[in-house]
Amino acid sequence: MQIFNLGMIGGGTVGSGVVHALQVNGDLLASRIGVKVQVRRVAVKALDEPRPYEIPAPLLSTDWKSVVNDPEVHLVTELVGGTGLAKEIILTALKLGKPVVTANKALLSAHGEELFAAAQQHHATLYYEASVCGGIPIIKALREGLVGNQIHRIYGILNGTCNYILTRMKREGGEFEAVLQDAQKLGYAETPPDLDIDGIDAEHKAGILGSLAHGFWINPSEIHVEGIRTITPLDIRFAEQLGYAIKLLGIIKRSATATTAGAPRIEVSVGPTLIPKSHPLASVEDVFNAVFVNGDIVGDTLFYGRGAGKDATASAVLSDLADAALDLKMGTKHRLPPFAPHALKGAVIPHPEVCSGHYVRLSVADRPGTLAGIATIFGELNIGISSVIQPEGHEGSSVPLIFMLHDSPHGAVQRALDRIAKLASVKAPPVRMRVESLE
Amino acid sequence: MQIFNLGMIGGGTVGSGVVHALQVNGDLLASRIGVKVQVRRVAVKALDEPRPYEIPAPLLSTDWKSVVNDPEVHLVTELVGGTGLAKEIILTALKLGKPVVTANKALLSAHGEELFAAAQQHHATLYYEASVCGGIPIIKALREGLVGNQIHRIYGILNGTCNYILTRMKREGGEFEAVLQDAQKLGYAETPPDLDIDGIDAEHKAGILGSLAHGFWINPSEIHVEGIRTITPLDIRFAEQLGYAIKLLGIIKRSATATTAGAPRIEVSVGPTLIPKSHPLASVEDVFNAVFVNGDIVGDTLFYGRGAGKDATASAVLSDLADAALDLKMGTKHRLPPFAPHALKGAVIPHPEVCSGHYVRLSVADRPGTLAGIATIFGELNIGISSVIQPEGHEGSSVPLIFMLHDSPHGAVQRALDRIAKLASVKAPPVRMRVESLE
Repeated sequence: MQIFNLGMIGGGTVGSGVVHALQVNGDLLASRIGVKVQVRRVAVKALDEPRPYEIPAPLLSTDWKSVVNDPEVHLVTELVGGTGLAKEIILTALKLGKPVVTANKALLSAHGEELFAAAQQHHATLYYEASVCGGIPIIKALREGLVGNQIHRIYGILNGTCNYILTRMKREGGEFEAVLQDAQKLGYAETPPDLDIDGIDAEHKAGILGSLAHGFWINPSEIHVEGIRTITPLDIRFAEQLGYAIKLLGIIKRSATATTAGAPRIEVSVGPTLIPKSHPLASVEDVFNAVFVNGDIVGDTLFYGRGAGKDATASAVLSDLADAALDLKMGTKHRLPPFAPHALKGAVIPHPEVCSGHYVRLSVADRPGTLAGIATIFGELNIGISSVIQPEGHEGSSVPLIFMLHDSPHGAVQRALDRIAKLASVKAPPVRMRVESLE
Repeated sequence: MQIFNLGMIGGGTVGSGVVHALQVNGDLLASRIGVKVQVRRVAVKALDEPRPYEIPAPLLSTDWKSVVNDPEVHLVTELVGGTGLAKEIILTALKLGKPVVTANKALLSAHGEELFAAAQQHHATLYYEASVCGGIPIIKALREGLVGNQIHRIYGILNGTCNYILTRMKREGGEFEAVLQDAQKLGYAETPPDLDIDGIDAEHKAGILGSLAHGFWINPSEIHVEGIRTITPLDIRFAEQLGYAIKLLGIIKRSATATTAGAPRIEVSVGPTLIPKSHPLASVEDVFNAVFVNGDIVGDTLFYGRGAGKDATASAVLSDLADAALDLKMGTKHRLPPFAPHALKGAVIPHPEVCSGHYVRLSVADRPGTLAGIATIFGELNIGISSVIQPEGHEGSSVPLIFMLHDSPHGAVQRALDRIAKLASVKAPPVRMRVESLE
């Protein structure tokens, strides 16, 4: 059987996971695809750094260039992360015409366009299944499984740390800070946790999914991002009473209207969102990720699995290695364009123009005229109120007042809330979250 | 751009759906994959039969042989269904070296081994994404996305009609027969409904998924099948009180022990199963399908979408057409073996040996000694009882008595129930359903 040698750059959590997965299932993989992938060398930062799985010492090297340049290395994995050295590694390998498998969402989000152009130029392929929701073969599903669909809507629970924290806050009624600290102790959140809980990691993934689905590169700076720091147990409880769960969602929606040049207009955002409790996305708990995709032909689909971790990510890397090895065997570089720029002039919709339902919680003085004053402001900005709830059991100088708003532009709602915040009867900054029926 | 001509056999629900999907998204598909698929001719039974989408008259023909043999036809879809003519069509096309895309689960289940052998022999490929859960790209996910995994467990809600009926029975508390009749009126169930409600359709799909995951052909006669006719609103309610939903599941489980020759032992069955209400599978409702897959590296994954219907199935056919067109363009027939027989000597575990939890509902006389008599029989057959519930609010000559049993072989449980049914205190045939924690 034909053998292809793998040069691995990065032997940490994911890298050692890949070595382990190939040790366990390398023969099975070979029997399935008819060609064998064999680890030839693994470049690491330090030979003695601790790893979740041991890598046989003779495979290790601290010189990534010698691994990439080794003429006996046929394909390369970049599993070092970051946007500096990782980029250099990938470009070096592509220039040698070697296929590269990466799990690096931050790099693709920032420099994807340049990297795919380099791949094209040097007749090599860049595979990136592991960059978005490791355990979910979502890149393959979007690019191949749903290739016959115009993608209307993607809703993704893209960050396991946030989903874990929100799940525990819901179960235990705990405050964000306390649950975060416990999650850090248990290893479910990093220190510092900002990349996850401020939505940056989800932003990277949403950008990649949006770019792939809609065929033009989405600039990360055009993605509206809100994290989960401000979510309170109170809002989780009120949402539940209203029939909703709160999830940090990456949202990619195609507008019904196009640009004047006829190109698609796409919303890409990340933020806490109320979704119906009965929807399958709402039952995605703990560290699991899920991506809901609506296509014009297929209708609703959902893909669920672990989003991160050494093993789930290794599974995605092995899938890419299989494709890369088959492409090498068949001599079919660029069989399927890894990223097909079929709508190069697409535009991201500025967030203030994006329309959705909204949940608004105010702390107000419990006195006559309060509701009228607030409702007047919503009315003046042409924002329809679908329901108002003043929950029972709250007394004191301020009481909660909850508005569910009809689909309205985020800009208008923000302007309304800025005005409402200044009312004398409003005692705390308004809380606002998006509401999606997912229909 | 290179164009490949498609000869379609079958222009009914799915066939006209494919024509429509290519009309709507054919250019988008071409821009994504760099090659165009164009419908050249569509062979149908009768030119004037009614279709959900119109097919342009000049494309129609009633002579399938002339379509398949047309030298300008590069690839063929078989969308006529059944196991007779469909087989002849596929074999004819494969013998000409033409790739074939099929949605025919009954045919693959019965004759897959022969058809894939013919494909291999004639250097053509048989694509079958649409044969299992149309809107869910599960064949691609198993064969490519999870290619690096040993597949431990698959639980599939594989039949939309059954899931629709069970969903309505749960929501409305209705009896099976009444809900079935209404489903037939609304077009969610066929007349006669047997293929769906007796589990035959799910059996075909479970066989294909099991064969693909485990690399040996599963003989349909070795699949244990139970349908949903005997499910009552009473059992749905009791299950709910115990924290479970009832779903018709296709179950494919790899045993920890192998055959004496070292080949895998696999359970393949279809039947009503109690699953935890909180599990994502339990929130799969109405006509939706879902396939839960546990792999040794990736852990738990789930794939969800519409299982049938003209559009969801067309989406799967377009995915296969894209792969087939790329393989034609690249000259890579058999790039990825459509079915890889990597474990040819695998064995299906006889159902009596299969172990699982069980839900048992008895109607018993409410008198002393009843419970002891039943418990004695379970004990003698070495079957552990994890809980017994005699629900409140039932009086009269017989009352319900519910047992949840620890993992026990199906054969032993059946023997116990045969004995229990003969007890004087037992007033009706015992009801038994499988219980799965899905862990």
